[in-house]
Amino acid sequence: MAKDGGPIRVVGISGSLRAGSYNAAVLKAATALAPEGMTIEIAEIGDLPLYNDDVRVAGYPPQVQRFRDQLAAADAILFVTPEYNYSIPGVLKNAIDWASRPPSQPFDNKPVAIMGASGGILGTARAQYHLRQMLIFLNAFPLNKPEVMIGAAQTKFDEAGKLTDEATAGFIRQLLEALRDWRNRLA
Amino acid sequence: MAKDGGPIRVVGISGSLRAGSYNAAVLKAATALAPEGMTIEIAEIGDLPLYNDDVRVAGYPPQVQRFRDQLAAADAILFVTPEYNYSIPGVLKNAIDWASRPPSQPFDNKPVAIMGASGGILGTARAQYHLRQMLIFLNAFPLNKPEVMIGAAQTKFDEAGKLTDEATAGFIRQLLEALRDWRNRLA
Amino acid sequence: MAKDGGPIRVVGISGSLRAGSYNAAVLKAATALAPEGMTIEIAEIGDLPLYNDDVRVAGYPPQVQRFRDQLAAADAILFVTPEYNYSIPGVLKNAIDWASRPPSQPFDNKPVAIMGASGGILGTARAQYHLRQMLIFLNAFPLNKPEVMIGAAQTKFDEAGKLTDEATAGFIRQLLEALRDWRNRLA
Amino acid sequence: MAKDGGPIRVVGISGSLRAGSYNAAVLKAATALAPEGMTIEIAEIGDLPLYNDDVRVAGYPPQVQRFRDQLAAADAILFVTPEYNYSIPGVLKNAIDWASRPPSQPFDNKPVAIMGASGGILGTARAQYHLRQMLIFLNAFPLNKPEVMIGAAQTKFDEAGKLTDEATAGFIRQLLEALRDWRNRLA
Repeated sequence: MAKDGGPIRVVGISGSLRAGSYNAAVLKAATALAPEGMTIEIAEIGDLPLYNDDVRVAGYPPQVQRFRDQLAAADAILFVTPEYNYSIPGVLKNAIDWASRPPSQPFDNKPVAIMGASGGILGTARAQYHLRQMLIFLNAFPLNKPEVMIGAAQTKFDEAGKLTDEATAGFIRQLLEALRDWRNRLA
Repeated sequence: MAKDGGPIRVVGISGSLRAGSYNAAVLKAATALAPEGMTIEIAEIGDLPLYNDDVRVAGYPPQVQRFRDQLAAADAILFVTPEYNYSIPGVLKNAIDWASRPPSQPFDNKPVAIMGASGGILGTARAQYHLRQMLIFLNAFPLNKPEVMIGAAQTKFDEAGKLTDEATAGFIRQLLEALRDWRNRLA
Repeated sequence: MAKDGGPIRVVGISGSLRAGSYNAAVLKAATALAPEGMTIEIAEIGDLPLYNDDVRVAGYPPQVQRFRDQLAAADAILFVTPEYNYSIPGVLKNAIDWASRPPSQPFDNKPVAIMGASGGILGTARAQYHLRQMLIFLNAFPLNKPEVMIGAAQTKFDEAGKLTDEATAGFIRQLLEALRDWRNRLA
Repeated sequence: MAKDGGPIRVVGISGSLRAGSYNAAVLKAATALAPEGMTIEIAEIGDLPLYNDDVRVAGYPPQVQRFRDQLAAADAILFVTPEYNYSIPGVLKNAIDWASRPPSQPFDNKPVAIMGASGGILGTARAQYHLRQMLIFLNAFPLNKPEVMIGAAQTKFDEAGKLTDEATAGFIRQLLEALRDWRNRLA
């Protein structure tokens, strides 16, 4: 339960902008798998400009301010990220860069859960460890376990992008329950 | 000397879009410090869109194609990057993501040098090791040494952004000479 | 306060076996800087054999069992580590490897603080991020902040290895207070 | 061909001391899969003491000196390492620590190939990236590709520890051929 007695509000961020993205599909699946007392809202990061500190100093653009406000209001963050070039996508890092700047830093002190989907066998391990290093600076608290790295993603969704693999649904549910418990422990 | 007998053509990429960026200033300084037989051309990455694979499939936007062509024509790459949130900026990662996709991969088999400037004491170490992991996937060949991490950058440039610190100029020159030698060794 | 109402028992581990080690000196200094309600006991890892799983299966050697028991009884762990070859020393990793094996895993669910001292300017950053990745697997909970990386260590101790730098003593004290608070938050 | 016109001498190091180790078995298999013009000699690291700089200053113990001499005489290095606690084993790091110290540093300027075997699906990816970071400091030159991460190792060897999986044998052969070519390119 959140401080106000309402549900735990989670903001979910997908690192891929592709319409048919497996990671976006995983995030969408997560919204339906959230345990009781948790809501997951999906953040839009595809309309953010490239980070430029001169722009920041002149004033956050409205879509950046919207993203920052959305994060600030969240009780916890859920990242669902592909791996590009052995790290997180530039698109996701750009969103983090905008979010991390003064006057407030909305990741500070927030519980975090991480997932990723890929076509290969290694899942998105390398990207997830890079993201975890960023979270040290941001003073966020990622769950240690479970680590959800969904490989062979093309076999786990139907043509409409709906998750059809029961084991994967179970891993997502476990992650969300662990996030709820971690959030309550840190509260 | 490049294959055609002309100078070694280096493309330099700054990870910061800020007009007064120390990293852009370091890259500009590098263009004047290049040893004989090397030219450094600065790539523009601030006008690239956010990476979206649907866009790529429909055809690279002209500014992306320009960036890809510029990298493909280079004999070596020079990264000059700040550190944001313990990694490279999203802006730089976004450029790498665009460059890395089919039908050709212009970092493949290229010698690479890395520098970074920051206000703090740790320089940009964490960002540089993340970048190095990306270069494994890209099959590029970064120099091991020297590692150029310029700390306390605010004390090393004048108000016009001109490098005034002789020791730093020396490190940059050493890096460029090492890049030339590394390129010739790998050729 | 620990569960039994007594002080928080911290086990401190130095990654260096050298008699005049700065890291051992930092750990010794920490024992005197511990806040009220915390005791720090120093673990011996220099007498552990090299990890060999055949040995483990035959039965933990007594010095390994002693180290494992000591960790199991701790409320929190304090690592003080040099950086060798851009990572933690083999000596420290070897101790972690022995501690991490069945039937129990004494780092599980433990709050952790990390420090390191070195002669150079970069402190021990690279080693600390490697250690943090290990702690994900071990399901330990390292403090995000403060990150204590003591550079130019040779200027901060007297000839007897006593810490003489007041600022460094302050950082150590801050880290220990943060560990106490983090431990209480997680309890 | 090595400088003296003889075969390329590779020293292979396994990170596991267990008699039935999959990684030792992979290294043994590699000795038989080496291409013409390459010999692979297996280094012993299980008898090295724990690294202690006081010991080094007093004089390298004979088994350390033997290991250092063996590396110094090699044209290239082959690491075959398990992953313990999301990094390389302490045993392997300890060997690297002994090898890396003055008056000479035998990894300097050496071509390197990396493999690893594990029971799980992620192979030994995390350990291999940690090892690669160490090699930056050591100024060694690891192959970018192929990255050989052998998962589900228990299905790929017979009871005597002989490699029976043809695909895996092919990957090992490719790695060794790439090491030969990389060595010749750098020579």
